[in-house]
Amino acid sequence: MSLMKLYDLELSGNCYKIRLFCSLIEQPLEIRPVDYLGGEHLGDDYLKLNPLGKIPLLDDDGILIRDSQAILIYLANKFEATRWWPISAKEQAEVSQWLSVAANEIARGPNDARLHDQFSVALDVGLARENADYILSIINNHLENNIWLATDNPTIAEIACFPYIALAEEGGVSLLPYKNINQRMLRIKALPAFITMPGISG
Amino acid sequence: MSLMKLYDLELSGNCYKIRLFCSLIEQPLEIRPVDYLGGEHLGDDYLKLNPLGKIPLLDDDGILIRDSQAILIYLANKFEATRWWPISAKEQAEVSQWLSVAANEIARGPNDARLHDQFSVALDVGLARENADYILSIINNHLENNIWLATDNPTIAEIACFPYIALAEEGGVSLLPYKNINQRMLRIKALPAFITMPGISG
Repeated sequence: MSLMKLYDLELSGNCYKIRLFCSLIEQPLEIRPVDYLGGEHLGDDYLKLNPLGKIPLLDDDGILIRDSQAILIYLANKFEATRWWPISAKEQAEVSQWLSVAANEIARGPNDARLHDQFSVALDVGLARENADYILSIINNHLENNIWLATDNPTIAEIACFPYIALAEEGGVSLLPYKNINQRMLRIKALPAFITMPGISG
Repeated sequence: MSLMKLYDLELSGNCYKIRLFCSLIEQPLEIRPVDYLGGEHLGDDYLKLNPLGKIPLLDDDGILIRDSQAILIYLANKFEATRWWPISAKEQAEVSQWLSVAANEIARGPNDARLHDQFSVALDVGLARENADYILSIINNHLENNIWLATDNPTIAEIACFPYIALAEEGGVSLLPYKNINQRMLRIKALPAFITMPGISG
C-alpha cells in the first residue's frame, strides 16, 4: 500500500481542505504539486486522471477521487472518523447542507472575489462580494446559537467552509462585522494538529 | 408521526429531485407549494425555516433539511436505501463526486441557461450554454464505458444530475449531440415508479 497522493496546489483553498483534514486525522499524504500556471491540469495526462481538469485530486492506491467535498467524505469514511462524518440520517444531512454551502454560496462569494483579486480571473467581483456578505451574514447568525456549523462537534462541514472564509480578505471582503465567524475560526485554529496555508494566519 | 412535508415548487428541478426519489423508494410526501412568484420564500416565516430562502426544504416531523443534495442523502440514509447511497468509502465518494457536479457544473450550465430563458433571470446565458456543453461532453464521455454515473446501480447521483440535463432544451441547449446521455435518460425513465415534471417527457 503506497501513501495516498494528493494532486495539489499550495494556494488553492480546496486543496488545503484535504491537507488540513489529513493533518487533523493524522493521516500522511504525499503531495504532488500540479503546475497550474503551466496548465498541467488541462494537459492530456492530467485529464485522463480527472476529466474535469480540476484540483484537488486524490489517488489512493489507484482509487481516484476528485472534488474536495467528495474527498473529505472519502477520507472520513475510510478512516472511520465518524465524529467528522456522522452516520445518523439527521446528522449526516446537517453536515451535507454545509458541504453544499461550501460548494455553492461560498464558492460564488468569497472564493470568486479572491479568484478575481489574486489570480485575475475575469468575473463580476461586485456580485461576488455581495454574495460573500450575504452568506457570511447567514453563517454569522447561525453561529449565534451554535458552536459549530453542524452537530455539537467539528465535522467535515467545518473543513469545507473554513478556507475561503478565512481567505475572504484576499478578495476584498472584510470579516470585521462577523464576530461569531471570527470566534469559530479561532476554534478551528485551536484544533490539535491544525495546519495553515499561505494567507491564513496560524 | 406525520407525513414528511416538502416545501415545493412544481417547476423547480431541485424540488423534482425529491419528489422523484420519494416515488422511486415508495415514500409518501406531503407537498406544500411555496408561492415563489409572490416571494413567500423570502418572507420572515419561510426564512425562519430556511435562512437561505431557497427551495426545496424538507420537514420531517420537525427535522428541517434544506438543499436538494442533502435531502437526498437524508432520505437514502433514513430509509436504508444503501443501493442509492452506498456505505463503502469508495462508492460513497464516487456518488458524492457527482452530487458536486450537480451542485456546481450542472447548476452553472444547463440550470442557469434555463433560468435565463424560462424565468428571465439576468445572467450571462452565453457562458451558461458554454458551461452546459462542456459538462455534457464530459458526462457523455464518461457514459461511454459506464451504464450509470457512479457504481453499477442507479444512485442518488443519477437523481441529482437528471432534472437539469433533461430540461436542458428549455435553456436552448441541444441534447442531440449526446447519445450516451440520451440513453441514460431513457434508463432513468424506465425505473419502476418513475414520475415526471413539466418539461420532461415521461
